[in-house]
Amino acid sequence: MINPNDRLLVISTSTIHGFSFLEYIKDEIKEFIQSDEIIFVPYARPSGISYDDYTQNVKDALQTVGISVKGLHTFENKKEAILHAKAIFIGGGNTFLLLKTLYELGLIEELRSVVHNGTPYIGTSAGSNLTGLTIGTTNDMPIVYPPSFDALQFLPFNINPHYLDPDPNSTHKGETRETRINEFHKFNHQVVVGLREGSWLRVENGVVELKGKLSARIFRQNEQPIEFESGILEEKVYRI
Amino acid sequence: MINPNDRLLVISTSTIHGFSFLEYIKDEIKEFIQSDEIIFVPYARPSGISYDDYTQNVKDALQTVGISVKGLHTFENKKEAILHAKAIFIGGGNTFLLLKTLYELGLIEELRSVVHNGTPYIGTSAGSNLTGLTIGTTNDMPIVYPPSFDALQFLPFNINPHYLDPDPNSTHKGETRETRINEFHKFNHQVVVGLREGSWLRVENGVVELKGKLSARIFRQNEQPIEFESGILEEKVYRI
Repeated sequence: MINPNDRLLVISTSTIHGFSFLEYIKDEIKEFIQSDEIIFVPYARPSGISYDDYTQNVKDALQTVGISVKGLHTFENKKEAILHAKAIFIGGGNTFLLLKTLYELGLIEELRSVVHNGTPYIGTSAGSNLTGLTIGTTNDMPIVYPPSFDALQFLPFNINPHYLDPDPNSTHKGETRETRINEFHKFNHQVVVGLREGSWLRVENGVVELKGKLSARIFRQNEQPIEFESGILEEKVYRI
Repeated sequence: MINPNDRLLVISTSTIHGFSFLEYIKDEIKEFIQSDEIIFVPYARPSGISYDDYTQNVKDALQTVGISVKGLHTFENKKEAILHAKAIFIGGGNTFLLLKTLYELGLIEELRSVVHNGTPYIGTSAGSNLTGLTIGTTNDMPIVYPPSFDALQFLPFNINPHYLDPDPNSTHKGETRETRINEFHKFNHQVVVGLREGSWLRVENGVVELKGKLSARIFRQNEQPIEFESGILEEKVYRI
């Protein structure tokens, strides 16, 4: 069951084709957080960008909707910063690096605690992977070794962000995304929600709603995948 | 330095477009092993295929060149089987699952030992990832949690099999392969050899030779990638 206090925006991607960073989603973020400041968690470091530069990009994108942004890395006492945050935004990049860093800083329990007390949580890409049970359905390269693949576990299923349909014209013999998720289901029971770029889940009052332009692809173990168009995702679909 | 006794075929993919399983590479395998039997290691289980079925596919493919195949899973004493193998072939599938299984069965040191004593080793895809220092440049989903990312470490660099060039027409915002390898190099020093489908490395007498149809893309930390066409890969290129 999803904690009814949890408020989550689980976003497939920070950027969609033809739009600048966060442009398509910033109004939703503004309305969702119901305040004017967030703590940004830059630890996933896409392309190895520095914490400062990554945070600056978020500042630049969100100042246009009147949100002020502080990087978690700038706080000496990070647990205190999370405790007092009005909203938390964990950005995309490398999921292994992100999770390892959060474990090393001892912030996993703190994040769970404040979200269960109602602090709004926004995740994009790797930050969305963390809302699920494990990072076992990330698309990222295992560039570092985290002490566990267990994620923040706000949702009783897994997320696959940047979900990508097979290219019918491809001659490449590497596995398709669907094949990979099917392999995951040989060894794991939980449902996997494949979120296409431009889609996101909004979670409030224990209810999961699919928003955005595209349907989501839902993978249940030993069943055919389901295309879910939009709206409320019923519990029977994502529970095992 | 590569152990001069090591004999390796490090193959990007078992199957290339337009050919059946192992068809394009089976003559090279036959000539390489200099015998008529191999032990096949089916633990990577592509698409979750059973050990028996996977081994049968290899049997069917290699009987046409007069090689008999036994699955390692059929031996009660697997360490003995490896010790007495005339050649070892580790097939592709999921690299995390493969490595975890080898650690759990306690076969890592046994494999290193026999290869350093001259037993020919053939790897495809996940089996090729294992010849490098770590599995940190696999393309696979982390469907299970291995006790370490350290691989068999026959080569003093990492392999990225199924290397895929960026698609200039793509509107997808997930990371390209090159971006992922660049992220790897923010946290790891070793060279990464991107092997395109249809190419392989043949390693003998401490010498690494690139064979097959396509160039390899070689990534060195903090340097521009190099396109290596074919032939002997000089040590200065892959050593750090």
